[in-house]
Amino acid sequence: MSRPKVVIVGAGFGGLTAARALRRDPVDVVVIDRANHHLFQPLLYQVATAGLAPTDIAYPVRGLLRRAPSASFRLGAVSSIDWSERVVSTTTGDSWPFDHLVLAAGARTADFGIPGVAEHAIGLKTVGDALRIRSHLINGFELADRDPSLVAAGALNVVIVGGGPTGVELAGAITELYSKVLAKDFPNLDVSATRIVLVELAEAVLSPFAPKLQDHAAAQLRRRGVELRTSTAVTEVSPDAVVLADGERVPVGTVVWAAGVRAEPLAEQFGLPAARGGRIEVGPDLSVPGYEGVWAIGDLAASYDDAGELLPQVAPVAMQGGRHVAEQIRRRVQGRPSTAFRYRDKGSMATIGRRAAVAQLPGGVLLRGTLGWLAWLWLHLVTLIGFRNRVSVLVDWAWNYLTWDRPGRLLLVAEEDPGTGGLAPQSGINGRDVAGGHEAAEGE
Amino acid sequence: MSRPKVVIVGAGFGGLTAARALRRDPVDVVVIDRANHHLFQPLLYQVATAGLAPTDIAYPVRGLLRRAPSASFRLGAVSSIDWSERVVSTTTGDSWPFDHLVLAAGARTADFGIPGVAEHAIGLKTVGDALRIRSHLINGFELADRDPSLVAAGALNVVIVGGGPTGVELAGAITELYSKVLAKDFPNLDVSATRIVLVELAEAVLSPFAPKLQDHAAAQLRRRGVELRTSTAVTEVSPDAVVLADGERVPVGTVVWAAGVRAEPLAEQFGLPAARGGRIEVGPDLSVPGYEGVWAIGDLAASYDDAGELLPQVAPVAMQGGRHVAEQIRRRVQGRPSTAFRYRDKGSMATIGRRAAVAQLPGGVLLRGTLGWLAWLWLHLVTLIGFRNRVSVLVDWAWNYLTWDRPGRLLLVAEEDPGTGGLAPQSGINGRDVAGGHEAAEGE
Repeated sequence: MSRPKVVIVGAGFGGLTAARALRRDPVDVVVIDRANHHLFQPLLYQVATAGLAPTDIAYPVRGLLRRAPSASFRLGAVSSIDWSERVVSTTTGDSWPFDHLVLAAGARTADFGIPGVAEHAIGLKTVGDALRIRSHLINGFELADRDPSLVAAGALNVVIVGGGPTGVELAGAITELYSKVLAKDFPNLDVSATRIVLVELAEAVLSPFAPKLQDHAAAQLRRRGVELRTSTAVTEVSPDAVVLADGERVPVGTVVWAAGVRAEPLAEQFGLPAARGGRIEVGPDLSVPGYEGVWAIGDLAASYDDAGELLPQVAPVAMQGGRHVAEQIRRRVQGRPSTAFRYRDKGSMATIGRRAAVAQLPGGVLLRGTLGWLAWLWLHLVTLIGFRNRVSVLVDWAWNYLTWDRPGRLLLVAEEDPGTGGLAPQSGINGRDVAGGHEAAEGE
Repeated sequence: MSRPKVVIVGAGFGGLTAARALRRDPVDVVVIDRANHHLFQPLLYQVATAGLAPTDIAYPVRGLLRRAPSASFRLGAVSSIDWSERVVSTTTGDSWPFDHLVLAAGARTADFGIPGVAEHAIGLKTVGDALRIRSHLINGFELADRDPSLVAAGALNVVIVGGGPTGVELAGAITELYSKVLAKDFPNLDVSATRIVLVELAEAVLSPFAPKLQDHAAAQLRRRGVELRTSTAVTEVSPDAVVLADGERVPVGTVVWAAGVRAEPLAEQFGLPAARGGRIEVGPDLSVPGYEGVWAIGDLAASYDDAGELLPQVAPVAMQGGRHVAEQIRRRVQGRPSTAFRYRDKGSMATIGRRAAVAQLPGGVLLRGTLGWLAWLWLHLVTLIGFRNRVSVLVDWAWNYLTWDRPGRLLLVAEEDPGTGGLAPQSGINGRDVAGGHEAAEGE
């Protein structure tokens, strides 16, 4: 009898964890992803602000699976699934029969139908997004260096929509990039006249955090010069302005859309039961009801905690889901019944800037300021996949901390031509990644 | 009286050295370059083979000029020079009046009119070139993973044209990438069936080196599996083959053109006296005859040694020329006469792979093997501009050495879509860089 075949769609936190958990099992695993690298997405905002290099937080999937003899990798995206023959086909012409199918394709930036977002804002889900933001910010300064009236016109202003951890961390990092690095690179420009605006629909930033931590984060952001607009909706994004619900037009050069995500549209495409945000409905064991041997995890899956709340779309849920599904596949192979998934919340963290972070740990432990920041540093270092990346991130962070430098401020992305007289158009959320067709790549 | 104005075209080794040498002089210096970064070009082949990140060898010019109070930077390319009004105009609409003009725009890849080179080969002069080579090699392996018959068809073969240090170092690094890294990433492919061919017109690789070192380099390359074709010309490059002068067609996936460079065409564009390879004729003091206060240095200039030989287009000539011209400008400002430039040859080096390099030092000292390699390592570390880059390169090199890893093998460049069934066309030498319009950027 041949070994059971496991197809995993997505090499993000969920898919990769599942593949590695099955590394010595008597199964054949293939991982499919549109990108050839796994991405440590929580630090993507540091690539966007020139503090880290893409290689610091991205690592080739094939390298990560080398010690998993049962697993192989294939570049590609799913184009169709034949549920009766139990075969997954990809855009690259591959066909993969499966006994178990793990759907871990993740989520992409969602614009909620707000006009102009898809055309004029940049998301923050892929390496391409981060490099686009970086390049767009720095090119704006180069243009303003030739025509300083652009500063007053708002061409260096940044509006970040979404006050969750991504938006908060990015806002803090941009203020540091502007005031400590670019202000020195461009001594002729009045960088203090630029505006960094963080827009959030809810009453406070960092909604799921304790009010004490929300207040601390808000105070730290304000202290760094971020304009906070809570309880505020965006009604439209134009090439040079963001229109708020109260009618104000904020002139802007760069709009980052961190207001939310939508699951990759696999439920819709392949007729699976869908829940809120396009997520795939799963049973207590993370199997898809009515589809034998089909599982969904991470941002793509709608799983619930004991209180009946949808679990958040964060890395720990995906990783724990990946481990759980690997265990369920092992049990099925051994003829044992499946067990229910229980998510163990290990807390949440967000950093605002140097020596300023908030951390909410289990048991009601709240950390902020330097202590929160050290906890944040430690957690991110130990969870960064791959020893080498950890050394390299540590070196980069130590350098950046000691010198306030951001060595990554190179203009390398194709989109903006320094020869043009104006700011080139942004390429929109879920635009093509720097690598062709990797938009909001699976599992990232 | 206002301070004399110095315009430097190009932020490569020559232009940057000149600007830094004038940092405390009573002059106003502006450096113009199409790229916003200085590039340590001698290590570009390691970016192409995924061993170093672009940020390891590129650094923002503005950061490098921070401690030069007399100097500023402007992104752009020269579009015209008004010799009577003494004004340089740029593609970005700037006009810069000058008392002294230092032309340091460097060289670009030259195809010598050989058919197909411009369309189907990749140069190795810019970060964009290096990322294109990297991406093209890795994408070839991903395609062959789906269709292993591509290996026999030659889609993973690499032909490097040009047996100078760039070609030799790249050939050695590609054999290591193939045999030690990609062979493990792609266990289903017969990587040993791929061909790495180095084509050189002269009778030996590394022409300017001593015969003993040439032989050592050739032996080391052969030992690593490189096919050497010396005394061989290329007559045509097609999308899937390189045609040699003896009529042989070498099937190929990637062609790297390292056969030579041509000066940036400033002599031609602006009516300056031209010498071989488009280089600008200069007098013994590096001034352009007949053009008061105009200087040319580095790859762009035709300067001669005591024996009447044209100086090579290498970094040390550019750096010494930059220092010399800075001193001449200083002397003119002080009303003193100019002095002649004397190039001091400090030797040449090339590395073939781990613990294999050749070094030719002054006084007839020849090093090879491990000793040559250590000398090479040391020289490149101490000359890499910027302390931070040195730390980061050291960490990367130590990691790569100990683990044989190449963490940079990420597919990030736009050109190749993993969804296409065949190898995407290469974008040619002097193609658009990853950053718009940075082809063979000035001073790089």
